[in-house]
Amino acid sequence: MSAPSAEPFDAVGVIRTKRDRGRISDAEIDWVIDAYTRGVVAEEQMAALAMAILLNGMAADELARWTQAMIASGERLDLSAVRRPTTDKHSTGGVGDKITLPLAPLVAALGAAVPQLSGRGLGHTGGTLDKLESIPGWRAKVSNADFISQLNSVGAVICAAGDGLAPADKKLYALRDVTGTVEAIPLIASSIMSKKIAEGAAALVLDVKVGTGAFMKTRDDARALAQTMVALGTAAGTATVALLTDMSTPLGLTAGNALEVRESMEVLAGGGPPDVVALTVALAVEMLAGAGITGVDPADALADGRAMDVWRAMITAQGGDPDAALPTAAEKQVLSAPSSGMLTRLDAYAVGVAAWRLGAGRARKEDPVSAGAGVVLLAKPGDQVRAGQPMLELHTDEPARFERALQALDGGFDICDGADFTAGPLVIERVGG
Amino acid sequence: MSAPSAEPFDAVGVIRTKRDRGRISDAEIDWVIDAYTRGVVAEEQMAALAMAILLNGMAADELARWTQAMIASGERLDLSAVRRPTTDKHSTGGVGDKITLPLAPLVAALGAAVPQLSGRGLGHTGGTLDKLESIPGWRAKVSNADFISQLNSVGAVICAAGDGLAPADKKLYALRDVTGTVEAIPLIASSIMSKKIAEGAAALVLDVKVGTGAFMKTRDDARALAQTMVALGTAAGTATVALLTDMSTPLGLTAGNALEVRESMEVLAGGGPPDVVALTVALAVEMLAGAGITGVDPADALADGRAMDVWRAMITAQGGDPDAALPTAAEKQVLSAPSSGMLTRLDAYAVGVAAWRLGAGRARKEDPVSAGAGVVLLAKPGDQVRAGQPMLELHTDEPARFERALQALDGGFDICDGADFTAGPLVIERVGG
Repeated sequence: MSAPSAEPFDAVGVIRTKRDRGRISDAEIDWVIDAYTRGVVAEEQMAALAMAILLNGMAADELARWTQAMIASGERLDLSAVRRPTTDKHSTGGVGDKITLPLAPLVAALGAAVPQLSGRGLGHTGGTLDKLESIPGWRAKVSNADFISQLNSVGAVICAAGDGLAPADKKLYALRDVTGTVEAIPLIASSIMSKKIAEGAAALVLDVKVGTGAFMKTRDDARALAQTMVALGTAAGTATVALLTDMSTPLGLTAGNALEVRESMEVLAGGGPPDVVALTVALAVEMLAGAGITGVDPADALADGRAMDVWRAMITAQGGDPDAALPTAAEKQVLSAPSSGMLTRLDAYAVGVAAWRLGAGRARKEDPVSAGAGVVLLAKPGDQVRAGQPMLELHTDEPARFERALQALDGGFDICDGADFTAGPLVIERVGG
Repeated sequence: MSAPSAEPFDAVGVIRTKRDRGRISDAEIDWVIDAYTRGVVAEEQMAALAMAILLNGMAADELARWTQAMIASGERLDLSAVRRPTTDKHSTGGVGDKITLPLAPLVAALGAAVPQLSGRGLGHTGGTLDKLESIPGWRAKVSNADFISQLNSVGAVICAAGDGLAPADKKLYALRDVTGTVEAIPLIASSIMSKKIAEGAAALVLDVKVGTGAFMKTRDDARALAQTMVALGTAAGTATVALLTDMSTPLGLTAGNALEVRESMEVLAGGGPPDVVALTVALAVEMLAGAGITGVDPADALADGRAMDVWRAMITAQGGDPDAALPTAAEKQVLSAPSSGMLTRLDAYAVGVAAWRLGAGRARKEDPVSAGAGVVLLAKPGDQVRAGQPMLELHTDEPARFERALQALDGGFDICDGADFTAGPLVIERVGG
């Protein structure tokens, strides 16, 4: 007796199937994602389905179809006019993770094209676009025509993703954020991979962070996510590998926007902190291999200025002045070591929250970020410190923010006398390939 | 860094607790129900929480608090001005379940007050108010003052529940309906019990239906629901017992509105089908015991007309004419036995859907129902039938409805030659007390 409907399925039936641990059929998956994008499946219905997926999981082929349906909800970039092999990278997000900045020009300098669509930061992890926007004149928005042309001329584009890519994911991501359904590996993996596959690069390297400053706190969870994403990429015909990398302490010596651009430029100039250099090179090797480019040493291209040349061309092509002075924060405050000994722990999450509270990050999508704010690390785990020696430098435009930033750092580090400290590996494990 | 909020909790935190199999605190439960009623907790958030409750369950004390919070979302009836002991009954819904109609006046005739707030039907089970509204002049709406006064003078009121009782449940019930979260025992139990406890009767008897025509298809599920509801009633200070009763075949010989009123009046006149009489008496004994009234035989009050007197007074008090002719449907069609033998199965669900499709029920809350439509059973399981003998009579105002009603009955009965048939008990089990 229900009213006739043009819809081939109904949301309650799909929800019930997953609720009762069944497999949603391919046709149902295609329908539910499309109908959700059209607004026929309501937010509360997708919320119930997301919770059922979180608690009951998805089969591998079911998730692959789900991801394909998310891609099909929007456009897929056509990179066929790009004359170089295309290769892309995605990080699951960390503190001080500026790797995309030196990495994209480095890989382009060695012959690949890097179409890097990036996002803005939310919470304690910074966003690549926020960082680049601290460069005077630089524009995140690039037209489709300029995107292809810049990939051919410069070899690298880092820009904002248009609204056309995987709109179902955009809607679902916002919903998950308010319904306690973010922490579902199938939903995380399909969210990332639907966008990355839609971006159309032939190869993809995933940097899956593990540790306190990462979304995945344990190696097992990170490995599960990496394996799921590698399988999704492979199923979609994208050559995909993942590196699990350490995010228990910040990458490099800075967390902030202009602060991280400055550090990235040091790496491009052949210097920079060893961990940032090492991870940049490790990811470059993987990206180049995915593009079929082997027998080159990325470290050479950092040392001899080729990567820096591409960086300057890339920034200039998007309106930025690579020689402009970067913004600095109005106020600084030092956090000194309370005792002498070895700094054995400097927690990535604590530093990330401190940088966020100093103004480097945003709590809501609409919030602005401060270009100059952030944290500078004057010591890293393994370093000896003396009581009273400056250990961290806090930068902000609003001195009222110091107090809450310092609170975030309270308990965020350990200084031990005669500690038996061994640094763990930066690249923990490789998945796929 | 989130904006300051006047709310003591946030929905995502509550959802995560239940998602991760934790216990929601009393304060969080009170808040989430209240905030949902106020619209501060969004529909999609409650949908995710409902799915997490469905899949992860609730502790007994957690559910008791949840139910109390639902009651606290609205008013609680004050029956202190009622001079008789109050006792109430609730059925989880079945096909041909007209028991409330003879039961309420019967229990009132034996000295208790029966404040019976009822609902309308949805889907294949009929609603008590829909049935009574087939009586010319009868009004479902009764003011609070008339409610108390009729309980004192007549002893029984069957009327519509006001919007003020457990408004959180009203909202949550509508949400569960569209999000695949109806089938959760904690949510079903708290939905029923929040309304019943808010109605304020001192005693409550639950008729928990089991079988194809019932919401609970298995005895184990029905027992679990009954035990949960009895515990909730007891925790709230309402003397509560439950009977599990058979709903594999319709109760009595009619499913429909006026058809069931007519059959109920036969019971009140000392006749009627044996199963309807037996269940009415069994439930009356329990309701009277809950009210502290023992040593009376409800069957006597049916036989000697005392129950009928209360019925007539009850109908009259609400504007109805107990002597008026009841509406009949414009068209009838007979379904004959296709073969000879014993009718071993006549499926409650099939008959319920047929009656619904004939016009006795509604698909959406807004739909009207037909007073005359329904199904009359000319044979019950255990009866011998001959091929071609009329077995069911279909009543409707719109002959176009016959075809779909007959489709619903296809496969809905078995006629076996020389079958070894034994009828199961009508009252299967008693829970609590």
